[in-house]
Amino acid sequence: MVRLQFSIQLAYEIHDETSDFIFNIQAARTQCQTVVEEHLTTSQAGSPIHFTDTATGNRMMRMQAVRGPLLVRYQAVVDIEHRSSCPEQLYESPVSDLPSDALLYIYPSRYCESDRLCQMAWREFGHLEPGYGRVLAIQKWVQSHVRFQSGASTGTTSAAETLVERAGVCRDYAHLMIALCRALNIPARFASGIDYGADPALGPTDFHAYVEVMLSGRWYLFDPSGVTPTMGLIRIGTGRDAGDTAFATLFGRVSSCAPLIAIEAVEDVGQGIVMPSHCEQALSTADCPL
Amino acid sequence: MVRLQFSIQLAYEIHDETSDFIFNIQAARTQCQTVVEEHLTTSQAGSPIHFTDTATGNRMMRMQAVRGPLLVRYQAVVDIEHRSSCPEQLYESPVSDLPSDALLYIYPSRYCESDRLCQMAWREFGHLEPGYGRVLAIQKWVQSHVRFQSGASTGTTSAAETLVERAGVCRDYAHLMIALCRALNIPARFASGIDYGADPALGPTDFHAYVEVMLSGRWYLFDPSGVTPTMGLIRIGTGRDAGDTAFATLFGRVSSCAPLIAIEAVEDVGQGIVMPSHCEQALSTADCPL
Amino acid sequence: MVRLQFSIQLAYEIHDETSDFIFNIQAARTQCQTVVEEHLTTSQAGSPIHFTDTATGNRMMRMQAVRGPLLVRYQAVVDIEHRSSCPEQLYESPVSDLPSDALLYIYPSRYCESDRLCQMAWREFGHLEPGYGRVLAIQKWVQSHVRFQSGASTGTTSAAETLVERAGVCRDYAHLMIALCRALNIPARFASGIDYGADPALGPTDFHAYVEVMLSGRWYLFDPSGVTPTMGLIRIGTGRDAGDTAFATLFGRVSSCAPLIAIEAVEDVGQGIVMPSHCEQALSTADCPL
Amino acid sequence: MVRLQFSIQLAYEIHDETSDFIFNIQAARTQCQTVVEEHLTTSQAGSPIHFTDTATGNRMMRMQAVRGPLLVRYQAVVDIEHRSSCPEQLYESPVSDLPSDALLYIYPSRYCESDRLCQMAWREFGHLEPGYGRVLAIQKWVQSHVRFQSGASTGTTSAAETLVERAGVCRDYAHLMIALCRALNIPARFASGIDYGADPALGPTDFHAYVEVMLSGRWYLFDPSGVTPTMGLIRIGTGRDAGDTAFATLFGRVSSCAPLIAIEAVEDVGQGIVMPSHCEQALSTADCPL
Repeated sequence: MVRLQFSIQLAYEIHDETSDFIFNIQAARTQCQTVVEEHLTTSQAGSPIHFTDTATGNRMMRMQAVRGPLLVRYQAVVDIEHRSSCPEQLYESPVSDLPSDALLYIYPSRYCESDRLCQMAWREFGHLEPGYGRVLAIQKWVQSHVRFQSGASTGTTSAAETLVERAGVCRDYAHLMIALCRALNIPARFASGIDYGADPALGPTDFHAYVEVMLSGRWYLFDPSGVTPTMGLIRIGTGRDAGDTAFATLFGRVSSCAPLIAIEAVEDVGQGIVMPSHCEQALSTADCPL
Repeated sequence: MVRLQFSIQLAYEIHDETSDFIFNIQAARTQCQTVVEEHLTTSQAGSPIHFTDTATGNRMMRMQAVRGPLLVRYQAVVDIEHRSSCPEQLYESPVSDLPSDALLYIYPSRYCESDRLCQMAWREFGHLEPGYGRVLAIQKWVQSHVRFQSGASTGTTSAAETLVERAGVCRDYAHLMIALCRALNIPARFASGIDYGADPALGPTDFHAYVEVMLSGRWYLFDPSGVTPTMGLIRIGTGRDAGDTAFATLFGRVSSCAPLIAIEAVEDVGQGIVMPSHCEQALSTADCPL
Repeated sequence: MVRLQFSIQLAYEIHDETSDFIFNIQAARTQCQTVVEEHLTTSQAGSPIHFTDTATGNRMMRMQAVRGPLLVRYQAVVDIEHRSSCPEQLYESPVSDLPSDALLYIYPSRYCESDRLCQMAWREFGHLEPGYGRVLAIQKWVQSHVRFQSGASTGTTSAAETLVERAGVCRDYAHLMIALCRALNIPARFASGIDYGADPALGPTDFHAYVEVMLSGRWYLFDPSGVTPTMGLIRIGTGRDAGDTAFATLFGRVSSCAPLIAIEAVEDVGQGIVMPSHCEQALSTADCPL
Repeated sequence: MVRLQFSIQLAYEIHDETSDFIFNIQAARTQCQTVVEEHLTTSQAGSPIHFTDTATGNRMMRMQAVRGPLLVRYQAVVDIEHRSSCPEQLYESPVSDLPSDALLYIYPSRYCESDRLCQMAWREFGHLEPGYGRVLAIQKWVQSHVRFQSGASTGTTSAAETLVERAGVCRDYAHLMIALCRALNIPARFASGIDYGADPALGPTDFHAYVEVMLSGRWYLFDPSGVTPTMGLIRIGTGRDAGDTAFATLFGRVSSCAPLIAIEAVEDVGQGIVMPSHCEQALSTADCPL
C-alpha cells in the first residue's frame, strides 16, 4: 500500500457579478483508493453542491461565486492498495465479452478520434499478440514518437493533431494512446490526477493526465508521458478524454493563477505502507465499470 | 397524439468466422413515447443480449453473428404524446441551475467541437435574448448556411468542418447546431430516429438525425435539416453525437446493403390520434435527464 | 505622394557552427514605390547573396552565419505614388481575361484553402455585384467576424481554421480574405510590409500583413485587420500567402529577439509629399503581374 | 532512350452560356523529354490561347467554351533520354547552396504542410545519412505506411490528413512524400503525368502523380505509390502540389466524364529505343530549375 498526502490551491478573480464553477479536484473513491482524510474549503460564502457523477464516479463540486477573489483549497490523505497482476496473464476481451458499460470507451471522443486512426493502429499494432504486451507497445510507440514540449499544444489539440505534430504534454500523450487503443477496440479512458515522483527538473508539481486501459475486466494504469512510477498516481477523475475531466470548468469572465500543488509520500513500514516505486507488475485500481 | 408504424430491415454478409454487432434500432421508451407493439428478429440462431444504456436510455442489442448472411428486422408501432409549450415561455437555464446529468451535454464531443466555436457562437448569437427564440435562430442559421448535399461529408466529418465546407446531410446539420448551442452553454444532444413526412423527392425513407435542446428543464425537438414536421420524429437513440448513436456498430469484415425502411402515420380521430403536421408550438418528448 | 522612413533591426544568436538565413526585409521596388535610400548591414563578416525573385519581385538576401550573435539592420526612405481609382469603376476580370501570370493567385495555397471555402464564399458573396464593392464586402465581413487577439493563432494557422475560431492577428485576417476572394475566382495575394499610422494602443510598430486584390488588371490594397490607412502601407514582399513572404527564414538552432521597428512619415508640402491618411479612393501600387 | 506514345480524351458538357477552361495536358518539354509529335484538338470552334508558365515550364491551354459538349483530344509521341546516376553519388545540397529558384520547393504548400511535419520528419529520418538513400527511405516509409485505397481521399485531402488516415491514391502518396522531404529542407515537387507499365489489375490507364526531388542540383524521379517503373513516367506538369498541376481547371457548371487515356511503349532496338523497365539507377529528366 502507498499513502499519498497532497494539497491543491486554486485562485481566481471573478470579473462578473456572478460566475459558475464546476470543480473536480477531490480524490476519487474506488475499490483500491481510499480517502483517509480530506478538507475542501472555499473563500467565499455560499453553499457549493457536491455530487458524484453516476457514469464515472467523479466527485464534483458546483458553486456560484460572486465578483472578487475566490480561493479553493483541498488537501487529502489517500491510501492506494493497487491490485497487481502478472502482465503475461492479462488479456484483451473480445468485443462480445465487453461489459456494456465499457462500450463507451471504445467509441471516439472529442480529443481521441479513434475513427480516423484505424488504419494506422491496425498496421502498426494489429499483428501483435493481443494483451498487456500490445497495450505496452502502444504506450512505448507514443512515448518514443512524441516529444514532450510545453506550449506545443493547446486546450483544443486532439490525438490526430498530435500524431501529425508529434509534440505535446501529458494530456496529448494520453489522448493519442487512448485513440490508438480504441481503434483496436480496446477500451481506454482518460484519467486526471496528481503524480508523486516526477522528475523535479520538469518543474513544480502539477496536475497530471494518464491512461486506464481495460484488460481482463479491470482498468490498468499506463502513464504514456512516462515520467512517473504508476504506483505514484492518484486518481481524481476519469472520462472519455480531457473534455470530461477538467479540474475546473469556468463560466464567465474569470482570471486565474497557476494552481499550487504539493504532494508527498508517507512511509510507514510497520503498517506496510511503502514508497511508490517503479514496478514490473501491471497495476489496477478499479474493476469495470468504475 | 400521433401513432407511427415503421419497419427497418438491415442486411449483412459476414466474411469472418464470427463478427460482433451492436444495434440500436428499437424505438426509445420515454415519458411521451410509448412502444405499443414491436417485433425484432434476426436470421441467425444465437441469443442476442438486450440492455438499456443507463446514461441515455438507448435500447441496445448485442450479438455475435457467424459467417454468412445476417438479416435483422424490426417493426414497431409507437405512440407519441408530445408535450407542447408556448415558445415564448421557454427559458435557458443558467449553468448554476442545470441538472448535473445535463452537464455532459454542454461539453464538446467528437463531432461537436463546441470548444472551437465559442467565439463564433457568441458573436453571432450572444446578443440575442436567451430562450427558445435564440435556439431557433441557431437552427435557422444552420439551415440557411449549410447546403444539403449527399456525399459532401463522410462518417468522420465534424461540426467545425461543416462550418467551413457548408455542405452535408442531416447528421452534419445536427452536429453543427449542437456545437453552437453548447458553445453558449445550452445543453444539446444528438437524436437518431426515423421521420415521417419528409419530402419524397429526397429519396426513400432513411434513418434521420435531429437535435434535442434542453430548455426549461425539458428536451425540446429541433430538426435543423428542416425537412420534417417535428411531430413526425420517432426517437431511437440519443447521445452526445453520432458516435454514441450508431444504428449498427460492426466489428470485423462485413458487407452491408442500404437499409430498407418504411414508415406511415396512423390516423384515428375517434381515439384522438392525428396525423403529424407542422406546428408552431415547441415540442418535447422527455424531461431531463432522459 | 507619401514618403516613409523606417528601420528594422533583427537580432539572433546562432547555436550551431553555421546557420543559413533567408531574409526578405528590403522595401519592394514597384512602379509606384521607389526606394530613395537604403542601408542594409549585418554584424557578421561574409558576403550575403542578394537576388530578386522573378515571380514576385521580392528582394531576398541569403547568408550563412556562424556561431554567435547576428544583427541585421535595415533602414530606408521610400516614396509611394499611389494610383488611385474610383471604386465604382473597378471591375473583376472574368477568368478568360485574367493574365496568365495572375492564375496562380486564384489557386489555393498553404494557408488559404480556397478550395474548401467555395460554398461559403458563393453563398455569402456570390449574389453581390462583382467589382470593388464585392471585395470590400469580403473585407468587411472578415473584419467584423474575426476578433483581433494576439496569441489566438500560431504560425501554422490557416484560413479555414480562422473561419472556425474567429480570432487571430493581421496575418490571419489576410489569409481569410484571400481565401474568400480566390473561392470566387478573384486573384488575391498576401503582402508583407510595415504600416504607418496604426493605433499606438496596439503596441510597438511591428511587421504587418495585408492583401492585394486584382481588379481591372491592377493590384489594389486592402487591409482587412483594419488598423491602418492603406496609404501608409509599405510593401516588402508579396506571395501566395505567409509561407512565401517570411521576413526571415532560419535553418538550424537559432534564438531570436522580437524585431525592433520604427517608422515615420515625412511631410514636405512644397514637394507634394503628404501625410498618409484614410481615403475613399481605391489605391494600387502595381500593375499585373508585379 | 524510351519512346512513349499516348492519347488523352476529355469530354465535358457545359451547362452555362460560356465556361472557362485551363488545361495542362501536353507533354512537358525538358532537356531530356522531347515531344516528337503531337496533336491537340477541341471540338468547339474558337481560338484557345497557348502559353508556357515561366516558373514551371508547364504548357497550358486556356479557352472559353460555349454551352453544349466539348471534346478535347491530345495525342503525342515523346522520347525520354533519362540521365541516370549512381545513387551513392547523389547528395542533398545544404540550404546555402540551393539555387534560389529551388527555395520555393522547400516551403509548405496547400497539400504539403511540411511546416507541421518537421518533428516527425526529423525523428524518423533526421539521423539517416543525407542523400539519395535518405530520400529513398522516405519513399519507402510512405509506401509501406499508406494503403492504396480508391475513394479514401478527396480533392481537398492533404499530407497531414494522409499521415493520420494512412490511405489514399497516387496523389496522396506524392503529397506526403513531398511534405516529408521539405520538412528536412530537401526541395521536392509534385509531377503530374501518365505512366507506362502500371499493373493492369489497377484498372484502366489514368493520370498519375509522382515526385521530383532535387539532389546534386538535378530533379530525380520517385514514384511513392510504387506501381510503375520510373522509366515509364511521362511528365506533363510540375508544381508545388496538385493545386498547381491540375489537368483541367473548370469554371462554371460543367459535367465531365472519366478521361480516356491510352499509352504504349515503342521499341526500336536499332535506334537504341528500349522498353521502360525497373532500374537501380537514379533517373532524372531535368536540371534545376525546370
